[in-house]
Amino acid sequence: MAGDGSFFPEIQPIAFAGPESDNVLSYRYYDADEVIMGKKMRDWLRFSVCYWHTFRGNGLDPFGKPTINRPWDDGTESLDNALRRVRAAFEFFQKLGVDYYTFHDVDVSPEGATLQETFDNLDKVTDLMLELQAKTGIKLLWGTANLFSHPRYMCGASTNPDPLVFARAAAQVKKAIDVTHKLGGQGFVFWGGREGYAHIINTDMTREMGHYAQMLKMAVAYKKSIGFSGQILVEPKPREPMKHQYDYDAQTVLGFLHQHGLYDEVMLNIEPNHTQLAGHEFEHDIILTAQMGKLGSIDANTGSESLGWDTDEFIVDHARATLIAKAIIEMGGFTQGGLNFDAKVRRESTDVEDMFIAHIASIDALAKGLRNAVRLLEHGRLPAMLKQRYAGFDEGLGKQIEEGNSSLEALTQHCLDNDTEPPVLSGKQEKFQAVFNHYL
Amino acid sequence: MAGDGSFFPEIQPIAFAGPESDNVLSYRYYDADEVIMGKKMRDWLRFSVCYWHTFRGNGLDPFGKPTINRPWDDGTESLDNALRRVRAAFEFFQKLGVDYYTFHDVDVSPEGATLQETFDNLDKVTDLMLELQAKTGIKLLWGTANLFSHPRYMCGASTNPDPLVFARAAAQVKKAIDVTHKLGGQGFVFWGGREGYAHIINTDMTREMGHYAQMLKMAVAYKKSIGFSGQILVEPKPREPMKHQYDYDAQTVLGFLHQHGLYDEVMLNIEPNHTQLAGHEFEHDIILTAQMGKLGSIDANTGSESLGWDTDEFIVDHARATLIAKAIIEMGGFTQGGLNFDAKVRRESTDVEDMFIAHIASIDALAKGLRNAVRLLEHGRLPAMLKQRYAGFDEGLGKQIEEGNSSLEALTQHCLDNDTEPPVLSGKQEKFQAVFNHYL
Amino acid sequence: MAGDGSFFPEIQPIAFAGPESDNVLSYRYYDADEVIMGKKMRDWLRFSVCYWHTFRGNGLDPFGKPTINRPWDDGTESLDNALRRVRAAFEFFQKLGVDYYTFHDVDVSPEGATLQETFDNLDKVTDLMLELQAKTGIKLLWGTANLFSHPRYMCGASTNPDPLVFARAAAQVKKAIDVTHKLGGQGFVFWGGREGYAHIINTDMTREMGHYAQMLKMAVAYKKSIGFSGQILVEPKPREPMKHQYDYDAQTVLGFLHQHGLYDEVMLNIEPNHTQLAGHEFEHDIILTAQMGKLGSIDANTGSESLGWDTDEFIVDHARATLIAKAIIEMGGFTQGGLNFDAKVRRESTDVEDMFIAHIASIDALAKGLRNAVRLLEHGRLPAMLKQRYAGFDEGLGKQIEEGNSSLEALTQHCLDNDTEPPVLSGKQEKFQAVFNHYL
Amino acid sequence: MAGDGSFFPEIQPIAFAGPESDNVLSYRYYDADEVIMGKKMRDWLRFSVCYWHTFRGNGLDPFGKPTINRPWDDGTESLDNALRRVRAAFEFFQKLGVDYYTFHDVDVSPEGATLQETFDNLDKVTDLMLELQAKTGIKLLWGTANLFSHPRYMCGASTNPDPLVFARAAAQVKKAIDVTHKLGGQGFVFWGGREGYAHIINTDMTREMGHYAQMLKMAVAYKKSIGFSGQILVEPKPREPMKHQYDYDAQTVLGFLHQHGLYDEVMLNIEPNHTQLAGHEFEHDIILTAQMGKLGSIDANTGSESLGWDTDEFIVDHARATLIAKAIIEMGGFTQGGLNFDAKVRRESTDVEDMFIAHIASIDALAKGLRNAVRLLEHGRLPAMLKQRYAGFDEGLGKQIEEGNSSLEALTQHCLDNDTEPPVLSGKQEKFQAVFNHYL
Repeated sequence: MAGDGSFFPEIQPIAFAGPESDNVLSYRYYDADEVIMGKKMRDWLRFSVCYWHTFRGNGLDPFGKPTINRPWDDGTESLDNALRRVRAAFEFFQKLGVDYYTFHDVDVSPEGATLQETFDNLDKVTDLMLELQAKTGIKLLWGTANLFSHPRYMCGASTNPDPLVFARAAAQVKKAIDVTHKLGGQGFVFWGGREGYAHIINTDMTREMGHYAQMLKMAVAYKKSIGFSGQILVEPKPREPMKHQYDYDAQTVLGFLHQHGLYDEVMLNIEPNHTQLAGHEFEHDIILTAQMGKLGSIDANTGSESLGWDTDEFIVDHARATLIAKAIIEMGGFTQGGLNFDAKVRRESTDVEDMFIAHIASIDALAKGLRNAVRLLEHGRLPAMLKQRYAGFDEGLGKQIEEGNSSLEALTQHCLDNDTEPPVLSGKQEKFQAVFNHYL
Repeated sequence: MAGDGSFFPEIQPIAFAGPESDNVLSYRYYDADEVIMGKKMRDWLRFSVCYWHTFRGNGLDPFGKPTINRPWDDGTESLDNALRRVRAAFEFFQKLGVDYYTFHDVDVSPEGATLQETFDNLDKVTDLMLELQAKTGIKLLWGTANLFSHPRYMCGASTNPDPLVFARAAAQVKKAIDVTHKLGGQGFVFWGGREGYAHIINTDMTREMGHYAQMLKMAVAYKKSIGFSGQILVEPKPREPMKHQYDYDAQTVLGFLHQHGLYDEVMLNIEPNHTQLAGHEFEHDIILTAQMGKLGSIDANTGSESLGWDTDEFIVDHARATLIAKAIIEMGGFTQGGLNFDAKVRRESTDVEDMFIAHIASIDALAKGLRNAVRLLEHGRLPAMLKQRYAGFDEGLGKQIEEGNSSLEALTQHCLDNDTEPPVLSGKQEKFQAVFNHYL
Repeated sequence: MAGDGSFFPEIQPIAFAGPESDNVLSYRYYDADEVIMGKKMRDWLRFSVCYWHTFRGNGLDPFGKPTINRPWDDGTESLDNALRRVRAAFEFFQKLGVDYYTFHDVDVSPEGATLQETFDNLDKVTDLMLELQAKTGIKLLWGTANLFSHPRYMCGASTNPDPLVFARAAAQVKKAIDVTHKLGGQGFVFWGGREGYAHIINTDMTREMGHYAQMLKMAVAYKKSIGFSGQILVEPKPREPMKHQYDYDAQTVLGFLHQHGLYDEVMLNIEPNHTQLAGHEFEHDIILTAQMGKLGSIDANTGSESLGWDTDEFIVDHARATLIAKAIIEMGGFTQGGLNFDAKVRRESTDVEDMFIAHIASIDALAKGLRNAVRLLEHGRLPAMLKQRYAGFDEGLGKQIEEGNSSLEALTQHCLDNDTEPPVLSGKQEKFQAVFNHYL
Repeated sequence: MAGDGSFFPEIQPIAFAGPESDNVLSYRYYDADEVIMGKKMRDWLRFSVCYWHTFRGNGLDPFGKPTINRPWDDGTESLDNALRRVRAAFEFFQKLGVDYYTFHDVDVSPEGATLQETFDNLDKVTDLMLELQAKTGIKLLWGTANLFSHPRYMCGASTNPDPLVFARAAAQVKKAIDVTHKLGGQGFVFWGGREGYAHIINTDMTREMGHYAQMLKMAVAYKKSIGFSGQILVEPKPREPMKHQYDYDAQTVLGFLHQHGLYDEVMLNIEPNHTQLAGHEFEHDIILTAQMGKLGSIDANTGSESLGWDTDEFIVDHARATLIAKAIIEMGGFTQGGLNFDAKVRRESTDVEDMFIAHIASIDALAKGLRNAVRLLEHGRLPAMLKQRYAGFDEGLGKQIEEGNSSLEALTQHCLDNDTEPPVLSGKQEKFQAVFNHYL
């Protein structure tokens, strides 16, 4: 870092420069304080930078060694290094102009020789984070505990066959909730990377899922006991690292929450790259959970259509960004969630500048998506086409069906009495697509 | 068909000939009345032939015209043809030696000019089916209504934007339940081939799913009102024909049932080829639902690992057959379900003989699987290895966790008090696999 | 059809209305005669409508009956119906404003009782097509023979185990080349839908591939013998309907052509939906073959990322359209090929209007893509960034390597003599993406 | 390691115990010196252990830290540690009873501060390997250079935009060929893990592929110049780590070899897990290359059907093992290749014993496969069925077609003269499958 304490001396704070700008270090569409549909862009989008990819990612992959070396990071697990990294991160958040960040416990603070020492380290690092939050106005979107990297979790954390591992995970969760609460975080996320199986033959699925439910119940109880008002979130993913993960996709998780009486206590954090890995299209889980009132937050990223693993790429596609923004607006905006960049520069993108360019390109794509979605919704043509399509259920027979006031007998009699085939109406998909394209 | 009324004069009833037989028209492993682990093989496996593939399949595919012409089928939609087809089917069931069959309403009986005429046709054809059931002892495993082939259902049946289509589907369901009841069927299946979307942009997902729940509720209410004691089953499939289907996989359906208060009323009919299309391995949904007490029946088939669509192939793999049989035995056998061959000969397999060979090969593979599973379970080594793996949850701290008698605070304190890293135990997957292989 | 002979009386010829238009029956970006980068838009894009989807598609799918009924089509295989369909098609081409079309032999003309009668029918129908071409100025992009729909081809056409089927396919190919030549077609396509296997166990792959090569050789010889100057094209597809098809993807086909001495005689017709099914991204095979000088023509369509089968959707994505247009411009435009809409309205899109809307939306997306690509290339920033990245191979050591003038020994010695690790340079992927996005 | 120099004191040499054995540390089917179909089992199967997974794998995955610690490995990159590891490896090979092993340069020997030092290290370690080869009779199947792990190769080795990286890769290849030659290796493999692209937009594909061809040409030239008689092999893989790799699958590589005049110089090393990732079924590339005379060697492993990344699992499936063994026998056995276990214990399988169990289970599955294939081929029923299917091409019209002595004109005339539709013959897939199953 530079002598003046700057870690990015060569980068100016990123400013709005308008759509004609060809500077990759400026915003073309994101004007944070511009009011659009009654709210500032920053409040609609609530951008957040994730600590793990952007400040701990080193380019390691299953076939290659680390490629990324940051000048402020000496590669050690020392507390000093951890603290310096926090300062660099906050400078990055500020220069980029985002309001939020997210982190796992182990991202920010080194593990100690004992659990107590680990806790103490976390206290020290979060003291600095709290100080820098106060100084910069940057806030914590959510915190989480990393229950998947340490070897002890190789066979699961809350789903581990060994209850001592469950206990250790519980301790880690408690402490991570504590520091999230201390930092004013607005949520706490469970991503169950090891909560699943590598092979069904050595696995007791129902027992493991039962244990996982117990962990969530304990977290909910603890959250209430300490007055933590952030949301508890589960983030679905179908597989990778495990062959099968219990939080397969949004509907699987919602069903699991119903089964264990947790539906009203837990929200979902949706990552589109995970949605894709579960065989759905990019936007499916976001739109579904938004409509069901269960979309707590979004891990804004995307995958590659030809790849069968998580690539955590930055969203740069305008059509997809428009679909996300439309879903956010239609649910009235986030309450405690946001658009968290759970995305990483490619391991070949080794320049410090690339960290900025990647975030800027995605912020801009999402800002463009917001602008598109606002025009689409304000114009009203597409929503009206959709409403019209289902108008038959707004009254009469349709309404009776929808409200549960009909029966097979009654409907059969209706058909026998009115025995003409109803006209088969075009679904008009291409027209919906064409109209949607008008707003891109 | 032959003058003596036989449709398969060249085929002798299929007999058990033992493992050394190289006759593809005999059984090597399936000895129907042999008692194994306290039950006849036929009662463990409850084989069923499906009417749609085996008596209505003609080899049509998206790129080609029908290839299969059966001598007993004149290709018309006449009632005579329908009745002759029923006779051929029962001769096939008998010669093959299976005890059950399944059908959709439209498989067996032609649609009439009016709904009433359609119902009348169905009454006439099922009269003959009832007669042949009595004569042969062959039973109906389950019935179902085809709510996906007719153009009126192109945008969904119970999820159609038009309530008149919902009503028509309801009438069809009622009648199909009626004839299933009349024939002594042990279940009624919903496979929602069109209950989903082709594109999210012209779809109101939550409204559609709500309507679908209403249909299931009506069916449950109607079943009770007429004293039908068979199970109501939902069969998951993730996609195809639609881009996304609401009954995505077993856990999605279970969650949906929870959400709508139907969990205790509805069982699942699992088709492994659908499980594979949802991104799971072949056996996943069968084992999961068996363990959860929700496996009502199985559509015994498989896909090809390289293909992204439903191929409905016959299971011939011994390892997979063993996994299925193990799950069936561990849940105590089927009550009202069975192994229904929702599988078809390839469109290039145009000989009548191929219908027999295909079923025989799969029956034998599943019978071999049953024999393997029995040895595996009677030997007890694999189940003991599994039980031992989770033994920590049978007492002490583990038991408290499992039973919901612990908390984050208590477990954190336990860890701080006993601050040693637990030994990380091998998951022994390869040993489990090696031992499993000993029984193949 | 209307009394005045119009089949689409309600649709006006589609006109250019500019980007602000919200009329889905007008062009926003496609101004056919506008000159851009030295050529008319119509000559850069050479749009073509395919006969099979747009005039023979009826919405049939593996789970449903036909949904689409056109007023001009009586559903029979009569010659009259075939001729009427041709008139409707040409009115459609004209109103849409495209210059080209494509067809399979069996799309336009009914099969007769004998091969001779089939040929005679084809002669009569193509007489009318020739007349309408002269009258309208619309041209044939390419012709092809359907060697996959008839049951005789179920086990392959040129790869069928029966030489009589090969012979029949050869007769069909000859006649289809003859009528393509008569109509002034600029190419003849082989899409080997059944040239592959359903199962490897009953297949002699090398023998089948050898027969397939013989068919291509015969077609090349015949083309030359009659003075047909159009290109012979092979269209890759990895699977569907077969489990494995021999024309798996572009590189597989190029290798096959090399192996059989056909590389200089045959070009490729690339369909992006097939590219996707082969596990590549949408644009891969187009860009690769364009760079290798082997891109003969494009079947302009796309698939859905979540689906494992061919959906033949219309391209509406601007980024993808830009990538295609960039590849076309960089190879200097098509010579004998074009952008053929091998795309179909969804089976739920049953209105005549939907045929127009779908084509318009895709024509517009591709026209927008062309405009974007022109700006991108004229601006020159992205091409310069790419050239710079490989500049090391333009001189010195790099040039020696590229030109084959180096050796392991020489390079080893160079490294030992200059034993410093070269700086590892960022690949700048995100910067390339950000700059690309500036032109969308 | 134990004082007596044994690294596996608790494991006895693995012995043949017959099919009834339930000891997972014995062979049930592999009796190395048993002669079967004229050759010892060890010579048919030529089993090889890979160094990278089995002696360098530590359980690291993209979401987790290393889990596997071997008692003989102190975790350092010291030469002492490297030498001790070699001793452990040879003890493992011996106790397991395999005849071959394989390695990458960097697997066995630490990189030095300079290239010369790296070479020197490799000389020292391979001196020990040579000594232990002589002492134990264990041989080197093939060697290879790791051109993908070091950061310098992040954008490719021979396809890197920087010629200095190409040069460095060339130096590494030369040295690796030298030590392979010194150790009497029977082949040298190129696996181009980074030879591809992460994004098409910053890539010049044709230029990169051209450079890659130059590297292969240099290797072929060098091999000849030093009298190395082993085969040069390319190992296809479609993707991972890159989005697209140039050696996509067997046919792509064969085409590439044709294009660059290398077809007769280079053989293929097929890994079924890679075949699966390319969208083919497990056995496809093995059977195809065996039939074409291009199957040089096999990396014996498998993937999971539900996973989109390389899992390198041990083959335990009898049917698949039988297909592989059948292909090997039909090509007359390996000449310089073998079955190399490019497979790893799961990261949860942390016991030393698991290394043995995993290899034993796979050796046994493949030995069972060999026994099955021998019976299948000796019995002759399946080969005869296949031959009969294509008999039409053995004479007359079929032979003329196959030998290139026919034409479209001649075949058209034949069809017009004999205008009867040939009978459409069943493909009999299910019968082939049923008969195949008789030998399992």
